[in-house]
Amino acid sequence: MKLTFEQKKEILDQQSQKNTTKRVTSVELEKILYDAIPVLDHGFVRVIDYMGDDTSIVQSARVSYGKGTKKVSTDEGLIKYLMRHWHSTPFEMCEIKYHVKLPIFIARQWIRHRTANVNEYSARYSILDKEFYIPAKDQLSAQSTSNRQGRGDLITGEQADEVLKILKDDATRTYDNYEKMLNERFDGSTIDQDKSGLARELARMNLTLNSYTQWYWKTDLLNLLNFLFLRADSHAQYEIRVYAEAMLDTVKKWVPITHAAFLDYRVGAVHVSAKGKKVIQQMAKGESVSHEKSGLSKREWNELMVSFDFKEKIV
Amino acid sequence: MKLTFEQKKEILDQQSQKNTTKRVTSVELEKILYDAIPVLDHGFVRVIDYMGDDTSIVQSARVSYGKGTKKVSTDEGLIKYLMRHWHSTPFEMCEIKYHVKLPIFIARQWIRHRTANVNEYSARYSILDKEFYIPAKDQLSAQSTSNRQGRGDLITGEQADEVLKILKDDATRTYDNYEKMLNERFDGSTIDQDKSGLARELARMNLTLNSYTQWYWKTDLLNLLNFLFLRADSHAQYEIRVYAEAMLDTVKKWVPITHAAFLDYRVGAVHVSAKGKKVIQQMAKGESVSHEKSGLSKREWNELMVSFDFKEKIV
Amino acid sequence: MKLTFEQKKEILDQQSQKNTTKRVTSVELEKILYDAIPVLDHGFVRVIDYMGDDTSIVQSARVSYGKGTKKVSTDEGLIKYLMRHWHSTPFEMCEIKYHVKLPIFIARQWIRHRTANVNEYSARYSILDKEFYIPAKDQLSAQSTSNRQGRGDLITGEQADEVLKILKDDATRTYDNYEKMLNERFDGSTIDQDKSGLARELARMNLTLNSYTQWYWKTDLLNLLNFLFLRADSHAQYEIRVYAEAMLDTVKKWVPITHAAFLDYRVGAVHVSAKGKKVIQQMAKGESVSHEKSGLSKREWNELMVSFDFKEKIV
Amino acid sequence: MKLTFEQKKEILDQQSQKNTTKRVTSVELEKILYDAIPVLDHGFVRVIDYMGDDTSIVQSARVSYGKGTKKVSTDEGLIKYLMRHWHSTPFEMCEIKYHVKLPIFIARQWIRHRTANVNEYSARYSILDKEFYIPAKDQLSAQSTSNRQGRGDLITGEQADEVLKILKDDATRTYDNYEKMLNERFDGSTIDQDKSGLARELARMNLTLNSYTQWYWKTDLLNLLNFLFLRADSHAQYEIRVYAEAMLDTVKKWVPITHAAFLDYRVGAVHVSAKGKKVIQQMAKGESVSHEKSGLSKREWNELMVSFDFKEKIV
Repeated sequence: MKLTFEQKKEILDQQSQKNTTKRVTSVELEKILYDAIPVLDHGFVRVIDYMGDDTSIVQSARVSYGKGTKKVSTDEGLIKYLMRHWHSTPFEMCEIKYHVKLPIFIARQWIRHRTANVNEYSARYSILDKEFYIPAKDQLSAQSTSNRQGRGDLITGEQADEVLKILKDDATRTYDNYEKMLNERFDGSTIDQDKSGLARELARMNLTLNSYTQWYWKTDLLNLLNFLFLRADSHAQYEIRVYAEAMLDTVKKWVPITHAAFLDYRVGAVHVSAKGKKVIQQMAKGESVSHEKSGLSKREWNELMVSFDFKEKIV
Repeated sequence: MKLTFEQKKEILDQQSQKNTTKRVTSVELEKILYDAIPVLDHGFVRVIDYMGDDTSIVQSARVSYGKGTKKVSTDEGLIKYLMRHWHSTPFEMCEIKYHVKLPIFIARQWIRHRTANVNEYSARYSILDKEFYIPAKDQLSAQSTSNRQGRGDLITGEQADEVLKILKDDATRTYDNYEKMLNERFDGSTIDQDKSGLARELARMNLTLNSYTQWYWKTDLLNLLNFLFLRADSHAQYEIRVYAEAMLDTVKKWVPITHAAFLDYRVGAVHVSAKGKKVIQQMAKGESVSHEKSGLSKREWNELMVSFDFKEKIV
Repeated sequence: MKLTFEQKKEILDQQSQKNTTKRVTSVELEKILYDAIPVLDHGFVRVIDYMGDDTSIVQSARVSYGKGTKKVSTDEGLIKYLMRHWHSTPFEMCEIKYHVKLPIFIARQWIRHRTANVNEYSARYSILDKEFYIPAKDQLSAQSTSNRQGRGDLITGEQADEVLKILKDDATRTYDNYEKMLNERFDGSTIDQDKSGLARELARMNLTLNSYTQWYWKTDLLNLLNFLFLRADSHAQYEIRVYAEAMLDTVKKWVPITHAAFLDYRVGAVHVSAKGKKVIQQMAKGESVSHEKSGLSKREWNELMVSFDFKEKIV
Repeated sequence: MKLTFEQKKEILDQQSQKNTTKRVTSVELEKILYDAIPVLDHGFVRVIDYMGDDTSIVQSARVSYGKGTKKVSTDEGLIKYLMRHWHSTPFEMCEIKYHVKLPIFIARQWIRHRTANVNEYSARYSILDKEFYIPAKDQLSAQSTSNRQGRGDLITGEQADEVLKILKDDATRTYDNYEKMLNERFDGSTIDQDKSGLARELARMNLTLNSYTQWYWKTDLLNLLNFLFLRADSHAQYEIRVYAEAMLDTVKKWVPITHAAFLDYRVGAVHVSAKGKKVIQQMAKGESVSHEKSGLSKREWNELMVSFDFKEKIV
């Protein structure tokens, strides 16, 4: 990730701000505020603003439950309780805003999380940067043969080289033609003074889906955790997962108690169906179990065994 | 509005916080942060936290429109442009959180604005305060005879006294019986040591709708302005309007440029239908207009004339 | 539940409609369409309209996953897969609309589910019916001593009689005074021709929270299931749970495959934390487990044991 | 727009359904249910399902306002009143579902309307169709010189030919390379039996933004009208406006009274700011007005004059 001179200056200006406030402040998050955390080859994530911290969650829960919460002695105990019992509204009381630079095909996945506020760079108004995502060699996976949406073995050697060449050449050519149609280069200079350029809202359609865009993305902590639960997961596409992982680190700095509870009760948790529960009960009693008698499909059986690292997987 | 000793102490503690932050800060709003602004006889509104200010709106608009916005020379010009052309997402980039104490029948109107986060005091867990809203004498209006949901002339004299007596007596009696059923007083003391009390989630049903509740209410600036547009309006019920007016003052301190644009393009604006537009066009050309030829219903005609302070109202 | 003559007529009129449509139709749901299913002493739930059925979920999933879904041979297999893997959007493709009559204190819980559309009877415009919820004797529970929001043992004998008398008397008296202040009875007749009545938007504040209101409530299947998961649960307050249970029956008629998957993967499922998972793994291997070594709090340990019906509960 | 044999068969099958229902039915909308209305060169819009009609809006308003609405004699009068006074919830009681085929760069604009449910064809699972949007010659506009996001004069002659050639060649080449990387053609046939193909979730990034995608899109009438207000407007990009216009026609068939009110009170309406109102008042009184004294910016002044077709525009 290379930042432009302008971007570096903006970050330094923002970081040099030193305001006094009566608001609660997250000391660890302040340390990295405005920092551009590199993701993929040209992307980044930056925390731009935030509201509240772990104590804000506790405070709003205590408003709800009144004297009833006084019995839970610690903030940590209360936050763990709220997370374990799926209380949602106290976690909505914290808000965070990110500035993200990301490839368009990933932006299309991301935007499906609707409960967030977004301001995206508009290619109707302005010319997109000449930057495309080209995967690293260790991410050039073949289509999985077992999973319709997963990745399989790595593609290597000549075939890998060919793929990378295609991606680079096609992105470069379509971008060059984008400039040609606009009759304008990404630095704003006109190509042919005697011509007018195609409308930007039209010319952009020639760009490939690995072109980078950027946006401000603002959401509350509850919806952020839902996003991270799905996108920091091993089943998420690698290219969005790396953003989610970078953001999960910022959550740890921002609300460390909530972060720990999230790992215990969500990320590392197992969800067992009614039928799966019977299998677990039998195993715990030392009874023998079998897929046939379980009522589970073969796929469900294996998902259950994998989730507990049991060896009774079947083929 | 009387605050308890505990509440006063909490406010003083919060106001004595002095943190350093790199975040943008609204100097005027900081001055009243945590203050309890009195509303109605026992209610209040307090700003508890906020994120962003006028510059945050400008900043996110510039991310969207890129170099395209550089031409608009000032922040004020840009914010006015955004408001005038119904751009919504930049105003979603600011967030605010209020602590509100309000009568239940007003809370029921308020909660219909769904795009906000709420933590309300729970009468399943805790005992409600012994406080009810009793209207001031100058608010004891009769049902309007012309408007199904409005207020008409003031009720005065003996009838007013009787109404106030009813409201006070019924609220007091139902609250006393609430305590009796709970077998517990609002200060937590048990009434009869030999009895158990009715479950709180049941006993609360005996309270009247003018009982006070409280909540944390958090929303973004766009949705706050939508709320204020409807609830600070002269057609809104007085008891919610006074809350909206107090909040509108906090908006002025928080985002003064946006506040001014809101008054000009929303609060003071007039919305003219396609048919109404023809009438205005004729009037501006000095042509005579008549209700009969306008295609407007009598009610629409009068609404149009009133909105421009024209005298051509018909009966 | 007694329906007025007018209501009965409206239901019969609606049920006598016989239209032809190319839309998918749920035969079982059609049979009870518009029926008022009684809930509590004066409440009801009626399905008023719906869109889609189990096949609509399948259809939209197949649009998303294209040929990828063809491998899953049956609709049932696909719906189970979607539910198990927390796919949400296909379940949003079905919509349902209910007409509900319910006590106000329950309406206040219900409305906290924000992702629904609501039209509620307005006491600003019209006079509320003279109907209050009075609990049945077998629901007069004392406050739980172990759980801040639960019910404990039944209150019986004289104390029960006293509670019921309070609830009836206070609701009746406050309603009578409501009419007196309105100077109008619930049937629309004026009480004193020489007086004007207090504005409805004010007079309503004298009513108790067990007064009945009614609304149209429309939501999609995903959000309905989220609502039912929380409100048909044993921890939900009895008075809302009975509504949720009645609605769960309508879901069974409407989308039977989804209903079965919901019971298996949500209602009957167990959610095990990362730490809890280690305990289960040890039990399944026949290793001895102990609360002390588990890292679980006492409360968590017991919740885990209860959820699997294990006997290792501690005190 | 060419439909595949499979698609035509699906439409015929759907249209041959003839179910009996007690639900309200929109006779005119039923006539075009499932029809693929052509938009752009390869796109379409189809109404797939719907719930409610004009009478559903009236019905839910009458639930809210009770006997208060009986005075408004007709359904039309009530719907016009609701629209004029910005009542929102009754219009949320109708729901509609579309199947849309559209270019990706338009899908990216469309998805910013968050209050809708979406199932999009997933290029992680399946191969996208070989279809791209190529503008018609009469849409090849240059960038506007006066408006940062608008279109100016038509590009013609050789330059137009060159633009069209670029768009076709680049889309074709990147698609061919997409197949090559996948080692699979869009019909599912393998290219080289000895190779494995790149994961679909990666290969798709090589496609250009004018590639067609498709989705199911479901929303309520209120949000649909908000969408159409913005997207059927002359300031909207042509490529999304043609979809909005096709959908506006379906609204006319579905809810004709609401459609008429929408045209009068929204589409054809004028919004006048507080300062603009003063100018209009002076004009109606026959007083002379001037930009200088109005307090309006030059841009605002001209917007006001244009909106009323007045001639006092300034340069």
